[in-house]
Amino acid sequence: MFDFKYFTPTKVIFGKDTEGRVAELIKEFGGTKVLIHYGGGSVVRSGLLKRVTDTLDAAGIAYVTLGGAVPNPHLSLVYEGIELCKKEGVDFLLGVGGGSAIDSAKAIGYGVANGGDVWDFYDRKRTATGCLPLGVILTIAATGSEMSDSSVITKEEGLIKRGYSSDYGRPKFAILNPDLTKTMPDYQTASGCTDIMMHTMERYFTNGGNMEITDALAEGLLRTVKKNAIILRDDPQNDAARAEVMWAGSLSHNGLTGCGNDGGDWMTHKLEHELGGLYDVAHGAGLAAIWGSWARYVYKDCLHRFRRFAVNVMDVEERGGDEEIALCGIEAMEEFYRSIHMPTNLRELGVNPTEEELALMAKKCAIGVGGAMGSAKVLNEQDMLNIYRASM
Amino acid sequence: MFDFKYFTPTKVIFGKDTEGRVAELIKEFGGTKVLIHYGGGSVVRSGLLKRVTDTLDAAGIAYVTLGGAVPNPHLSLVYEGIELCKKEGVDFLLGVGGGSAIDSAKAIGYGVANGGDVWDFYDRKRTATGCLPLGVILTIAATGSEMSDSSVITKEEGLIKRGYSSDYGRPKFAILNPDLTKTMPDYQTASGCTDIMMHTMERYFTNGGNMEITDALAEGLLRTVKKNAIILRDDPQNDAARAEVMWAGSLSHNGLTGCGNDGGDWMTHKLEHELGGLYDVAHGAGLAAIWGSWARYVYKDCLHRFRRFAVNVMDVEERGGDEEIALCGIEAMEEFYRSIHMPTNLRELGVNPTEEELALMAKKCAIGVGGAMGSAKVLNEQDMLNIYRASM
Repeated sequence: MFDFKYFTPTKVIFGKDTEGRVAELIKEFGGTKVLIHYGGGSVVRSGLLKRVTDTLDAAGIAYVTLGGAVPNPHLSLVYEGIELCKKEGVDFLLGVGGGSAIDSAKAIGYGVANGGDVWDFYDRKRTATGCLPLGVILTIAATGSEMSDSSVITKEEGLIKRGYSSDYGRPKFAILNPDLTKTMPDYQTASGCTDIMMHTMERYFTNGGNMEITDALAEGLLRTVKKNAIILRDDPQNDAARAEVMWAGSLSHNGLTGCGNDGGDWMTHKLEHELGGLYDVAHGAGLAAIWGSWARYVYKDCLHRFRRFAVNVMDVEERGGDEEIALCGIEAMEEFYRSIHMPTNLRELGVNPTEEELALMAKKCAIGVGGAMGSAKVLNEQDMLNIYRASM
Repeated sequence: MFDFKYFTPTKVIFGKDTEGRVAELIKEFGGTKVLIHYGGGSVVRSGLLKRVTDTLDAAGIAYVTLGGAVPNPHLSLVYEGIELCKKEGVDFLLGVGGGSAIDSAKAIGYGVANGGDVWDFYDRKRTATGCLPLGVILTIAATGSEMSDSSVITKEEGLIKRGYSSDYGRPKFAILNPDLTKTMPDYQTASGCTDIMMHTMERYFTNGGNMEITDALAEGLLRTVKKNAIILRDDPQNDAARAEVMWAGSLSHNGLTGCGNDGGDWMTHKLEHELGGLYDVAHGAGLAAIWGSWARYVYKDCLHRFRRFAVNVMDVEERGGDEEIALCGIEAMEEFYRSIHMPTNLRELGVNPTEEELALMAKKCAIGVGGAMGSAKVLNEQDMLNIYRASM
């Protein structure tokens, strides 16, 4: 076990129609002038945005709105949000949507609270010392950004996708109404389940510090999402499964499933970030497309964990040697991805990079992680290139 | 699933020597004048109190101290603490010890922040609207008070033990160093493990709202504590097992293992509270002494949960009818209690109430819960008396 900090201050309000409590929660956390930040038109078309503004109007809370957050949200919109907040005297941010709107809102919050160029934080040049307070109404179960300390932004110039993590960015409250996720296309639901599982898997495949209690929670979470992802494939409107997946999404990335370990591996995410920066693919689908190639490349260096994953999560029988069991677990995971219509390579993801593009992604990925990174296995630029090639 | 709120703002700092960070954490949360509240002499004898005061001295943080918090902490000491805080201008509370010191500190915090008679909150006459900020250095893994919203105090007049729960009382930070629990007597360690498991079991045996993700986390936690309680029986200084149990203790009572259910049963706790009020027994041991009798009295009204508990936590084979499997689970739990030298009835607990005393406890318990309570089965005063009698 390694020493750890566990800090999840976000007040979660979970259940039907809970978005009706948004004004009360904003007031509780001191907001008087709100920027409502959202993504595409679905928040408008579904009537959710109007319900939110009606609630704020009724409570006498002033607000401005800024839409347009796209998957792999753009830095230019963050800059626009920062200027809008300064001009309007905004003192509270409300992200309405999925991870894109929330991550973008976090970035706006860092920019307003710290001044200077907000990209500095994502580019590892500065550390934030604050963030505008932020609340969330979640409509997509996936990134866990509603309770997490992380935010991922893409700089359009050079298509550079980078994450920044700080406790200051953890939302003050998160409104989780599973009904709001029912408008998600099936592909996005499956992609979200993949992302949710990967947040725990990144923490699970490590070479140090694992605690039994953390493993037990992680494995329980993974089994629950796996089961309910299949239920949602067959019955997308299933209330109970929507709730299970949504709550698992928050728990999977708030830190709970990594307590005591060495910080996790995270290379599947880093490899996917370069894909997402170049190709605008759904994040979860990108993770599924990379994971199998990563797993086969690293499993011998983290055999005890891959074996345990196979048995305790993928229900692989304990027959044969450790390597055989570990490989069966990787195959079972890929079979699960296929069963929920997720890709297991770049072709199935719908992208076809040239050798030069693969090399560029590996180079950018290596730069992004400071040269080499990983816990299951430390990967350098050549390793990254090998994994990209294997995922073609 | 029922709607739920999940709010665990406590910043947990977990690991070796983490008590050295106490001054930094007090400053982070704005404390300038601290009341250090602790229990018996062990915090003094072990040198922990001196290490804490040395750290505060070095950081230039002023403090006063108040010892004497006993198991089933007394209201009179709470009053004394409130007066001391007012006189000294205390703006931050530091509980050093186990649940007694922390619960007592919470009560002091309510008293200072709200004025009037603090017993009003425990007596359901008023609701707190604040609490002095509170930090914790934990030395006993048991009550989970370091992350929970609850506080239990005993009023000496009439030996009335009552709990009060409020988010205002959740500690700002909790320093969890498993080494600090190594001085616990073996009986207290086992009693702590029993209490930890019971906090999740109270949430588990319900007739409504259970989520799969919550069940998976609950069962994983229970299996982990059960295994590590036995490790600590044989090897009390085992570092890893100390850490597993300590972290499980916090997670078991911060709300995580009850998300989505109907609030839980809690009648074993309520029945034990009357025992603890009258006899000053170790809380966990009291729970163990009551649980089997409670379980046999109610299991037919909550059969699906007792069956699931038997299979998923106690490893009972799925042979025979549901009642048979459920009963095997109850027997296996009692066998576990015996294996860690916990009592399974009042005689083994070392108390021998008269029929009049049993009736008095049942009456006080019924009054304390407002007449009748329970989720596995709603119990009235006669039910409570029946269970007390069965536990003799």
